[in-house]
Amino acid sequence: MRRTLLALALLAAPAGAEEGMWMPSQIPSLAPRLRALGFRGDPAAFADLTGDPMGAIVSLGGCSASFVSPEGLVATNHHCVLSALQQSSTPERNLLEDGYLARTRTEEIWTGPLSRVYVTVSATDVTERISGKLSPRLSDLARQETIERRQKERLAACEKGGLRCRVASFFDGMLWLEIAQLEIRDVRLVYAPPAAVGNFGGETDNWMWPRHSGDFALLRAWVRPDGKPGPHARENVPYRPARWLHVSPEGASPGDFVLVAGYPGKTERLLTYAEVKAELEWAYPRTIRRYRDQLSILERIAKEDPERSIRVSTRIRGLANTMKNREGVLAGVARMAYLERKLAEEGALAAWIEAEPARRAAYGGALPGLDALQAKVARTRERDASFQALHAYQSLLASARTIVRLAEEREKRDIDRDLEYQERNWIRIREAQERLQRSVDLGADRALLKYAVLEAAALPAGQRIDPLDRLAGLAPGMPAGEAARKVDAWLDGVYAGTRLDDRTYRLSLLELRARNLSREKDPLLEVARALAPMDERLRAEEKARAGARSRLAPPYARAAIEKAGGLVSPDANSTLRVTFGTVEGLSPRDGLVYAPQTRLAGILGKHRPGDPEFAVPADVLAAIRAEEARRDGRLRDPALGDVPVNFLSTLDITGGNSGSAVLDGRGRLCGLAFDGLYESVVADFAFVEEARTIAVDSRYLLWTLSEVAKAHHLLEEMGIEPSRAAR
Amino acid sequence: MRRTLLALALLAAPAGAEEGMWMPSQIPSLAPRLRALGFRGDPAAFADLTGDPMGAIVSLGGCSASFVSPEGLVATNHHCVLSALQQSSTPERNLLEDGYLARTRTEEIWTGPLSRVYVTVSATDVTERISGKLSPRLSDLARQETIERRQKERLAACEKGGLRCRVASFFDGMLWLEIAQLEIRDVRLVYAPPAAVGNFGGETDNWMWPRHSGDFALLRAWVRPDGKPGPHARENVPYRPARWLHVSPEGASPGDFVLVAGYPGKTERLLTYAEVKAELEWAYPRTIRRYRDQLSILERIAKEDPERSIRVSTRIRGLANTMKNREGVLAGVARMAYLERKLAEEGALAAWIEAEPARRAAYGGALPGLDALQAKVARTRERDASFQALHAYQSLLASARTIVRLAEEREKRDIDRDLEYQERNWIRIREAQERLQRSVDLGADRALLKYAVLEAAALPAGQRIDPLDRLAGLAPGMPAGEAARKVDAWLDGVYAGTRLDDRTYRLSLLELRARNLSREKDPLLEVARALAPMDERLRAEEKARAGARSRLAPPYARAAIEKAGGLVSPDANSTLRVTFGTVEGLSPRDGLVYAPQTRLAGILGKHRPGDPEFAVPADVLAAIRAEEARRDGRLRDPALGDVPVNFLSTLDITGGNSGSAVLDGRGRLCGLAFDGLYESVVADFAFVEEARTIAVDSRYLLWTLSEVAKAHHLLEEMGIEPSRAAR
Repeated sequence: MRRTLLALALLAAPAGAEEGMWMPSQIPSLAPRLRALGFRGDPAAFADLTGDPMGAIVSLGGCSASFVSPEGLVATNHHCVLSALQQSSTPERNLLEDGYLARTRTEEIWTGPLSRVYVTVSATDVTERISGKLSPRLSDLARQETIERRQKERLAACEKGGLRCRVASFFDGMLWLEIAQLEIRDVRLVYAPPAAVGNFGGETDNWMWPRHSGDFALLRAWVRPDGKPGPHARENVPYRPARWLHVSPEGASPGDFVLVAGYPGKTERLLTYAEVKAELEWAYPRTIRRYRDQLSILERIAKEDPERSIRVSTRIRGLANTMKNREGVLAGVARMAYLERKLAEEGALAAWIEAEPARRAAYGGALPGLDALQAKVARTRERDASFQALHAYQSLLASARTIVRLAEEREKRDIDRDLEYQERNWIRIREAQERLQRSVDLGADRALLKYAVLEAAALPAGQRIDPLDRLAGLAPGMPAGEAARKVDAWLDGVYAGTRLDDRTYRLSLLELRARNLSREKDPLLEVARALAPMDERLRAEEKARAGARSRLAPPYARAAIEKAGGLVSPDANSTLRVTFGTVEGLSPRDGLVYAPQTRLAGILGKHRPGDPEFAVPADVLAAIRAEEARRDGRLRDPALGDVPVNFLSTLDITGGNSGSAVLDGRGRLCGLAFDGLYESVVADFAFVEEARTIAVDSRYLLWTLSEVAKAHHLLEEMGIEPSRAAR
Repeated sequence: MRRTLLALALLAAPAGAEEGMWMPSQIPSLAPRLRALGFRGDPAAFADLTGDPMGAIVSLGGCSASFVSPEGLVATNHHCVLSALQQSSTPERNLLEDGYLARTRTEEIWTGPLSRVYVTVSATDVTERISGKLSPRLSDLARQETIERRQKERLAACEKGGLRCRVASFFDGMLWLEIAQLEIRDVRLVYAPPAAVGNFGGETDNWMWPRHSGDFALLRAWVRPDGKPGPHARENVPYRPARWLHVSPEGASPGDFVLVAGYPGKTERLLTYAEVKAELEWAYPRTIRRYRDQLSILERIAKEDPERSIRVSTRIRGLANTMKNREGVLAGVARMAYLERKLAEEGALAAWIEAEPARRAAYGGALPGLDALQAKVARTRERDASFQALHAYQSLLASARTIVRLAEEREKRDIDRDLEYQERNWIRIREAQERLQRSVDLGADRALLKYAVLEAAALPAGQRIDPLDRLAGLAPGMPAGEAARKVDAWLDGVYAGTRLDDRTYRLSLLELRARNLSREKDPLLEVARALAPMDERLRAEEKARAGARSRLAPPYARAAIEKAGGLVSPDANSTLRVTFGTVEGLSPRDGLVYAPQTRLAGILGKHRPGDPEFAVPADVLAAIRAEEARRDGRLRDPALGDVPVNFLSTLDITGGNSGSAVLDGRGRLCGLAFDGLYESVVADFAFVEEARTIAVDSRYLLWTLSEVAKAHHLLEEMGIEPSRAAR
């Protein structure tokens, strides 16, 4: 009842500023604001996920993208296809470095088993079915298990028709949506520029302005001859989407209305002060410190030889990117005195709740409860984080844990399995282990595991990882030198004996039943087995916490929204969202102005031969010089007198939005969002007026396809007459 | 004849862009351009050096300044009074750090024996007297000696009336002016802000934009009771200048006309390609490398204790400043491909000369001659530079050389002495040795001399400094380790024995006749004596080169000017110049814009407590916050909604212009120039459209005096009603 009332309130009030990663269903009520900013279409259309333009918006799982032709051509960012490029690269043919253009459909390169194109087809409110009628007598653990069981039941029902489904929580469990997606599994690379274009400026320019990145790439979705998704196969045909976007040869200019539809990953604007404080004062500095260390470990390895460099490059870029983001967030937090502000806001909310008995009754227990929960979490966070760090993403010990757990979970009925290990996920577990092969480097794996173990070795007496102590012969208070020697000796044995880096062996283990797997004595499997009981205990603790949060967080969110008295967008959760604003520069500091656009001439200005970040390839250089000599191209911005490269806008995006189509006031694709500004990454916690999105102008994409890649067949496919593209 | 013709041509053509550090006598012919830009006064007035406004413009010797009250108040930069502040600082009373305000005239602090205010009173063309009728049969050495003797004769005549004179060469000896100046020797500190205001942003912001420096200070010129200049004395009275500038409470705003009159030190726009190439490819990188090394030596020393830190701070700042400038020049040279451009221009000039027999006859030999001269210089430049480096500025070995040479030169008739050692300079030689005491640090002196000696130790066999080899026991090709040990052993002896760091002893040596001095066995004097014969030989070689240049450079300059066919400003030579332009921002790179002004709010934005470069003092912070809360001050820029701090303009200045009054279209002081942009320091070689001057807005000066220093007596003296200054 209360929820319905709030949902109504949520739709009634006017929008402020440009904040908001809106659910598509919220857009119709924002119509006046959209129109005022210059949108010429029908805002109501956004609620229809299969209509125009939302039907053209897709997810790649981690990145966003969109259909740009009736034959399944997909536009996204160059940095969203890095793994795909890495996947198909060899020391002789480096697609990362050189880029790629398929001149025919048969030349399109399958981007590997993990690549997906997800097309959202529906989103249904299932709040009552997930969190309704939960007995208050349930323990927190039982409560969470009930919620998860209900989710699994929903998923099973939803996926009967062959779709991929997800039950997603909004406003911290206040609202649950069941989202159904078409899952296209044969994704092929059509075009990627060389890294010197797609990642021009490298780490130096990452999160920065002025920017001159050609951060675009084209994929194609392929399906079975019957039009249904299926695994990669020779006989597959291009997918024919019901909706696709027209790529605009007019791009976006200062003051223009722009809109992004995509899949933002995570924001934390609705957390409590204590939760945010722990994030910013404990977790963020910890991540920065660890990633800096890990980067130096991997960079040393990358220097050794080119093959290893390809294997570790994606991880290096990922660590560096996250580290810079975290640093930017902390700088922003300090600059805006965010924690003080958040504390004051929370104080005001508490006072507002206290002010009326009805509110006190409905929301009074939420904040104290969440604070107590956070205090409890803090007590073991060093140990918990160290334990998880042992199983780092793409590490062989993580593989071992997956193998051991999968065998164990297989023994259960599907409905009793953990969500992650349900049968519906087996294929992607297998595919992830296949894909892992590209980045397996035994030396890097050992070095990073050693780093994590030494971290655990330094834990205080009350927070030890006991099984690890036993395995490596560690004890609290052991001098660092002694610990390092013990860990080295232990890992020497483990890595001399393990065969998990062998693709065939590793994949074969995924097929074994528990009994058969228990006969395998691979040292990394033994480590995973030794850690398993503790792993299970920590999972149960985590579930109990989630159960507690599912009691406490929804009323806290309700109170915050009710107090705000209006339309609020939920924190990002990797579901389809819409944000809108205008093309606009920024004065990041007194006396300094970021112009809203950059242009080809700026690429020449940054060109530094021999510099891996700023050397412009010869053909691009020649094309730009020819363009500058011409002074009359059709893709030029009249006010700029040049072809625009990147532009800034007031859109509210975050990680996951990468590759998102930027739509103009007429719904055409006028750009691809690919980054935020260092100065405003703090917006993940608190929206700031300075928030800006960096996008590639569609004119730079078209210019590159026309003048550098000479990809006239693709221009034609996108409905652009090639001869008129640039001139 | 030809010269007169050229001088006429020089006045006829219109000015291009804003390039030009014009001689005041050239300004009347630039009247149309001045008026077009917004100057409302009479351009002809600039030719009158004692009239308005030029009579108010003064030199401090190395910096520029101006009278801003009828009682001798002088406005200049904070960084121009650093030595004065250092001079009067002690570990207990750090004027550098804390600033100073004299609340009464008696509180004004004498800034020491070397401080001067020079007021230019006349500039007379003496070209014919200096370089006319020189026999072509003279050797280059004899030619130069004749030119120098003629200069000394002119100086002797000019200085009879008590003025200080200089015979200065323009256009590389094509024109000679005799410049007479009033030399005021009692200069006192009236007001300096704390370093945290005057040098806000420190080395990080130096040469940079956006800038928020309060780089201003006030001095006062004092004279004898009869109004004539004299040494510092109790009975002195404030000087009453005939002209002074009105400090404008309206500052300068975007688009406004601005003009700087001051004393730019040195530009090298009219050198030959070969000369410029040697500067940029040899001398500049060498300076950068050496200064970086020396900085790390001095910074280590500065860390040791605060007293030593004060002693070496000015030198550290000077080295860092020059190093950054050189780096900026080289970056600019690379960016604009300056050397290629210069080569092409010189080729065009050579072709133009060749194209007509009359030109060939007049100018044909100049460029080949200069090239041959440059080639000869290059042969021994490593040795020559290393030799000079032994006698670094403010080093004790330089003192020893001065002492030895002074005794030697004293024996001659004054007219036969080297210019530098003529009797007219004895007092400043003595004063320099007095002042040196403030920065004498035996450890630093030894470390820097060791650095220079080790440099000399590495010279190739053909270019050795033989007397040094004998002194330190060095030989060509000696391993670096062995050389270092020998040099250490030698310097241990020298520095254990020297007393030159003793002020009294050092000054007493300046009074000794050669015979008596020869009995002094101070080890540094012995070193100077051992080096003296080579020193003399190198001086003679240098004179011969100057003689050759005096033959070759004037026709080269004439050819260049004639080809340019118009009004050309001579390279800067520390004489009074005028440059004009407008207040204007800059786009230094595609996508980035430097706004033309900064403001108080930006100081808050940069404030970082505890950071020595960016911590804003508490009283300034409070005053800014009060100002921001008020929102109605009289010193605010209406468009900016705040008090402006610094502004950019298209003025063409260089080192030496620091402290220059920036005049508005009505001739009022609207700012003080204090820096150039890193992006455009290359303008010392080639004027670029991007050249910008950074100045303090007069409103920030007045605001600081009113709201922070509460110096109402000074505002009154400048004709600003204190109560109306800020509100």
